[in-house]
Amino acid sequence: MDFKNITIIGVGLIGGSFALSLKKAGFAGTITGIGRREENLARAVSAGIIDHSTTDHAAGVRNADLVVLASSVGQFEKIARDIRSHLKRGAVVTDVGSVKAEIIKQLEPLMPPGVFFVGGHPIAGKECPGMEGAAADLFTDAQCVITPTAKTNGEAMGKVIDLWNIIGAKTVIMTPEQHDLIFAAVSHLPHVVSYALINTIIDIDKNILPHGGRGLRDLTRIALSPPDLWRDICAYNRSSILRTLRSFSSSISSMITLFEESDWPGLEKEFLRAKESRHLIETD
Amino acid sequence: MDFKNITIIGVGLIGGSFALSLKKAGFAGTITGIGRREENLARAVSAGIIDHSTTDHAAGVRNADLVVLASSVGQFEKIARDIRSHLKRGAVVTDVGSVKAEIIKQLEPLMPPGVFFVGGHPIAGKECPGMEGAAADLFTDAQCVITPTAKTNGEAMGKVIDLWNIIGAKTVIMTPEQHDLIFAAVSHLPHVVSYALINTIIDIDKNILPHGGRGLRDLTRIALSPPDLWRDICAYNRSSILRTLRSFSSSISSMITLFEESDWPGLEKEFLRAKESRHLIETD
Repeated sequence: MDFKNITIIGVGLIGGSFALSLKKAGFAGTITGIGRREENLARAVSAGIIDHSTTDHAAGVRNADLVVLASSVGQFEKIARDIRSHLKRGAVVTDVGSVKAEIIKQLEPLMPPGVFFVGGHPIAGKECPGMEGAAADLFTDAQCVITPTAKTNGEAMGKVIDLWNIIGAKTVIMTPEQHDLIFAAVSHLPHVVSYALINTIIDIDKNILPHGGRGLRDLTRIALSPPDLWRDICAYNRSSILRTLRSFSSSISSMITLFEESDWPGLEKEFLRAKESRHLIETD
Repeated sequence: MDFKNITIIGVGLIGGSFALSLKKAGFAGTITGIGRREENLARAVSAGIIDHSTTDHAAGVRNADLVVLASSVGQFEKIARDIRSHLKRGAVVTDVGSVKAEIIKQLEPLMPPGVFFVGGHPIAGKECPGMEGAAADLFTDAQCVITPTAKTNGEAMGKVIDLWNIIGAKTVIMTPEQHDLIFAAVSHLPHVVSYALINTIIDIDKNILPHGGRGLRDLTRIALSPPDLWRDICAYNRSSILRTLRSFSSSISSMITLFEESDWPGLEKEFLRAKESRHLIETD
């Protein structure tokens, strides 16, 4: 393990699970948690998730060899400004944000000389955020995308990759832009679609929704995700999500045309095309 | 129990489960299954799902007090024409189709004098159709919608309601048109959306889909449903599905506008509105 002192900013589902995973993997160093609510941090310490805690960014990162940004992406820039003058030379800063290009564009220039930023995104989560859901096996066999840029320090990146592998994740390398288009398509677009589907049904008639069964529940489970978190993800990945939303809108328009023309063989062909590709998504 | 001889046309998931539910509820009469494939029927007899079987519609319905149409909705009209001159006086014909208004319009005029049609739709199912999934508890606590028209015979309707209640379903009365709009919104629209979502992602880049995780799997599970079955449901419920598809398309357009205008508070409000209504769908 290349890091001795690790500081996690944001001890929620992902930050807490990261800490638990480190301990499970036999990490012998110290884990410091930084957060905004003292009672939350105190619970994390007494639950053995983190070793120390503080609400003071400067104090919390001073000895850190690795700083993990695990709060919501909307706070990353402010945090980086708060900690930059307190980071020690040689420290590595990484993040677990669901969007990459815009964030890396903000964070890289904020790193002081001798401090290296490495963007990352572990693909793991639940609708329920917060430390309560944290688990030592959340990242086991999960994909973790690492998104280097031309400015990324290779040694620092190697250390971050090692760490994710040690806690059981499978790292994958992509450019920030590739990452953002892919996750716009498979994650961000589906969230927007899920929220829009519920609102459509309410707008048709507010008494209809209770008739929904298992299929509708499946399609709308991710609409239970925190609206403020998803607002930030949408803001930071605006252009890729817009691209996928426009494609989806065309796809719905094509479906409408098939209905208008009563082109049932054409509609069946579209259904079949989708059904035959569904297996490409990771198995249930 | 008002019926002695019950004939089920289409011994698949729903037809097979209906037969098993009857037996579990202590039905003492005879259950005849009609289908197109002899080997399927033979398996249903040897599995104890049905008592007798035939591929001959005329022979299969001759003694029936109740005929249940449980094949795919696209076959109902042809079946009705095949059986109409062989039904006995006083027989009741019902169905389990996912669409009602168009089908009832086709079937009611085809009933001979003294034979009564009662439309029904049990809300139960799985992606995997076929007898293999049939279960005696598929309808336990499930909703079963009964859709009378001005021509429906009240006594026949009462008998059909009794039967569903005996096997554990909760009957709900609606007009065929109410039924079709409600299930267009909570079931048919979500299916079209799910198929369209997969096709959108493939069209953006065919290598993206494998990156999908649990959220996308949930949203696209119903895209595993049989395309021919859903083609028929779409054809028979064209106008209501079109209405809901157009509303959904407007909802997606509004989302696109919020992105174009970078109206993040407005977007969060839409997300929150959806999240707060999600609980109205039957609990997980």
